[in-house]
Amino acid sequence: MVDPLLTDLYEFTMAAALVAEGRAETPATFSLYVRNLPPNRGYLVAAGLHEAVRFLRAWRFDDEAIARLAETAPFDPAFLDWLRRVHFTGRVRAVPEGRIVFASEPLLEIDAPFGEAQLLETALLFLLTFPTAVATKAARCREAAAGRTLVDFGLRRAHGGEAGMMAARGAAIAGYAATSNVAAAARYGFPASGTMAHSFLTALAGNDPAGELGAFRAFAEQYRGDPVLLVDTWDTAGGIDNAIVVAKELEAGKLGNGGRRLAGIRLDSGDVAALARLARKRLDAAGLPDVAIFASGGLDEFEIARLLAAGAPIDGFGVGTNFATSADAPTLETVYKLVAVDGRPMAKHSAGKATLPGAKQVWRRPGFGGDVLGLADEPCPAPGAEPLLEDVDVDGRHDDAEATAAARRRFEADWSSLPLEYRDITNPRRYAVAVSERLKALSDNAPGPG
Amino acid sequence: MVDPLLTDLYEFTMAAALVAEGRAETPATFSLYVRNLPPNRGYLVAAGLHEAVRFLRAWRFDDEAIARLAETAPFDPAFLDWLRRVHFTGRVRAVPEGRIVFASEPLLEIDAPFGEAQLLETALLFLLTFPTAVATKAARCREAAAGRTLVDFGLRRAHGGEAGMMAARGAAIAGYAATSNVAAAARYGFPASGTMAHSFLTALAGNDPAGELGAFRAFAEQYRGDPVLLVDTWDTAGGIDNAIVVAKELEAGKLGNGGRRLAGIRLDSGDVAALARLARKRLDAAGLPDVAIFASGGLDEFEIARLLAAGAPIDGFGVGTNFATSADAPTLETVYKLVAVDGRPMAKHSAGKATLPGAKQVWRRPGFGGDVLGLADEPCPAPGAEPLLEDVDVDGRHDDAEATAAARRRFEADWSSLPLEYRDITNPRRYAVAVSERLKALSDNAPGPG
Repeated sequence: MVDPLLTDLYEFTMAAALVAEGRAETPATFSLYVRNLPPNRGYLVAAGLHEAVRFLRAWRFDDEAIARLAETAPFDPAFLDWLRRVHFTGRVRAVPEGRIVFASEPLLEIDAPFGEAQLLETALLFLLTFPTAVATKAARCREAAAGRTLVDFGLRRAHGGEAGMMAARGAAIAGYAATSNVAAAARYGFPASGTMAHSFLTALAGNDPAGELGAFRAFAEQYRGDPVLLVDTWDTAGGIDNAIVVAKELEAGKLGNGGRRLAGIRLDSGDVAALARLARKRLDAAGLPDVAIFASGGLDEFEIARLLAAGAPIDGFGVGTNFATSADAPTLETVYKLVAVDGRPMAKHSAGKATLPGAKQVWRRPGFGGDVLGLADEPCPAPGAEPLLEDVDVDGRHDDAEATAAARRRFEADWSSLPLEYRDITNPRRYAVAVSERLKALSDNAPGPG
Repeated sequence: MVDPLLTDLYEFTMAAALVAEGRAETPATFSLYVRNLPPNRGYLVAAGLHEAVRFLRAWRFDDEAIARLAETAPFDPAFLDWLRRVHFTGRVRAVPEGRIVFASEPLLEIDAPFGEAQLLETALLFLLTFPTAVATKAARCREAAAGRTLVDFGLRRAHGGEAGMMAARGAAIAGYAATSNVAAAARYGFPASGTMAHSFLTALAGNDPAGELGAFRAFAEQYRGDPVLLVDTWDTAGGIDNAIVVAKELEAGKLGNGGRRLAGIRLDSGDVAALARLARKRLDAAGLPDVAIFASGGLDEFEIARLLAAGAPIDGFGVGTNFATSADAPTLETVYKLVAVDGRPMAKHSAGKATLPGAKQVWRRPGFGGDVLGLADEPCPAPGAEPLLEDVDVDGRHDDAEATAAARRRFEADWSSLPLEYRDITNPRRYAVAVSERLKALSDNAPGPG
C-alpha cells in the first residue's frame, strides 16, 4: 500500500490553503499527460493505471499518518480534521493500460473536489510516469527483437524492488515471454525464467575450467525442466562443446529424469554476434538445431538491433539494467494540470508549456490515421474515430494477473496496427495529434482576461 | 518489508542445486562492488546499507511466500523445506553509509552458507545500487551548488515511491537542506520543504494575471511560516513586484499572524539566470536583501554549474527528476561475486570482468592519499591507513533518522577532505586504488589450474 505521505509537502500546503479559503470542495478537473516525448520515441505505452486505481481506492489519512505529517510541518487543526475525513470521492477517466498514446494526450483525468484532486498529484505522477516509460522501453526492445523471445532480467539494478515490479509488468504488457523476477511472475501471472550464474559454475567446477562439464552435468541432473546452460564462464567455444555433450546425454536419458532436452545456451560476454554464429554452427553440426541461443549482458533495443543487423543467429534476449531503468530516457515529462475549476475551463499560455483548457477526450481514427484531442463533452469530432479515455471503476477490484493480461491484449491490438514508421527506434515519424475546433476555440477564448 | 520473492528465479534454481548437491551449507564469501564508475564520476557515495540490513534481519520465507514460489516454477520438496528454515545466519562487513568509495572497492561482503548467500544476491544488489547512485548524484549537485541550498523535489517522477524515498535519503546523506517528500522527511528526520504550484495560483487568481497579487496575499495570509512565492506563472517581472508588495505587508504585520517575513521567491521557467538578476536587483532596491531567490525546473549538477557560472544570484536550487532518476547515469555497474568457497579463494580472469579472490578490506591513506585493496585477514598494508569495511551488527536496530544523520556526518567528513580534483563534475581525476602485494600474489596463484 502506498504511504499517503509519499507526497510533496506543497500539495498539503495548497490543500490547506484551499480548506482555509473554503474552496477545497469546489469541483476541479486535473489532466495528467506527457508534454513531449523523449528522444527517439515515436509513441508511449500507457501503463500504471492498475496500481494508481488501487492507490485511489485505499487512499486515507489515519491518525498515524496525520501525526507524522504534523511533525514535519505546522498545519491548522481544521486542515488536519479535513484530512482525517478525506478519501477519493471523484471520477477517473483514463486510457486503459497497454494502449499506445502520444504526447499531449491525457493518460488520466480526475474530476474531484479541488482539495482532494490537488493532494493526489504527486502519487498519481509517480504511479504512472515510470510504468509508462518502462512499458514503452519494453515495446522498443520488442521492435528491435523482431519476433525473437524477450525476457526481463532487470530487477537487480532497478531503482528498488517497486521499480523492478513496474519494469516486469511493463515487460508483461509489451509481450515479453518471461521475467526473472519471481515476485512479479507470481503476482502478474507471467512466466518466470532463469537458470544459472557464472559464480555458481565456478564454484561447482572447483574454480577449474576442466570442471565445467561436470558442473553442467550436475546442474542438468537435478534441474526439474529443460535447462539453459551458461557457456561463457571460461572459454566459450569449449563451453559450447560441453553443452553439446550434456544435450546428447539428456537426449539419451542419462541425466536425472528422462524426457528432457537442453533448451538452450546463454552467451553473456564477448563478441556475442560471432560467438552466436559459432554456437549455431556447432549445435547444428551436432544435430541440435532446436537448442536455442540466448544472449544477455548490457542489452537494450539499440544493441539488439545491432546484433540482428550483424546476422547473429540469436533466438532470445535477456534485457536487464538498460531496460529496467529505461537508461537512455529514464523519465517522462509528465504533468498534472488543472484544466477546470467549478465548471470553468482553465488554460495556460506560456511558451513551450501551454496547457489546453477543459476535460478532454482523445479520438483515434482507425488504423492510427491520426488522433484528435477534443473536449470530453463534445460529439466525436472525427467520423469513425474511437474514444481512448474510458470511465474507470475505482471501486471495482481487478485481479493483478487479469488486469495485466487485458493490458497485454490491448497492447497487441494497438501494436499490430501501428504503422512501422512510428515504431522506428531511432527515427520515428511524428504521429499527428490534432486539436478539435471546439477545443481550439475554447483555448483561444478560455483565459478570459489572462 | 521487502518481499523475499523479489529475487531472480535463478537464485532459487542455484540454491536448489546447492541443496541437492549437499553444498548449501558450505561457507562462502560474496563481495558486492561497482566494476567501473559511470561517465563523469570520480567517486561514489556509499548508501543503502541501512535498508539492506533491515532486509537481512527480516528475511524469511513463510508458507505464503513458498506457495507463491511453487506456483512459478517446479522445485524439489526438499528444497522448499530448506527454504522454510532459511534465515540470515552470516556475517556482514560493509563500508558505512555516507563514506566516499571508488570502483572495485567492496561496498559490502557477506560470509554465509553458500545457499543462503546466493539467494541474497538480487535484493542486496537492488538495495545498494540505486541508493549509492543517487547519493552520488546528490553529492555532484552539492559540488555544483557551491554552498547554496539544495532541496530534493524528485518524488513525482522517480521510479516509484520507494525510489523517491531512496533519492530523498541520498539527498539527506549528501547534505541537502530539505526534501519535498513528506514521508521521507518524517522517516529520516529531514526537513520538509515546498510551497505552491502554478495551477494553484492560476485557480486562486481566477485564471487572471490581475489576480496574482490577491492570490499571493491569500496564500501568505493563511500560511503558517515564512512563505516562498512562485513568481513566474504569468509575467515574471510583475510576479516579482507583487511578491515585493506581499513582503512589505508581511513586514508590516498586515497579513495573518505577525512576526513573519517573505522567505523567498521561486523561478521555475524562462531564462532563469537573467530573471534571477532582475529579481535580485528589484528585491535589493526594495530593501529586501534577505529575501532569497530559489530556482527549479529541469536542474541537475550541469545546469546548476551553468547558472552559477553565468553569475546568476541564486540562493537555492530545487532539483527534481534529473536528480531523482540520476538521469545522466541511471545505474551503476554493481556486481555480487563469489570470492571464496569453503575457505578457498575464487577468482575470475576474463578480460574486463576480472574478479579478485578472497574476502577483502579497503585501506585508505589519510587525506585521500590513495586506497589499497587488500585481503580481509592481512595486516594493514599501508602505514597509517584506515580500514573502510566494518563489521555490521545485523541484529542491532538502528533508528532511521539516527542512521541517516550518522551517514550525513560521515559524508561531511569525507567530503571536506576529498581533494577538489576528484570532485570535478565533468573531468575528475582518477583516484588511485592499488592492490596489496598479498592480494596480487593470491590473485596470480589463486585459480589453481584455471
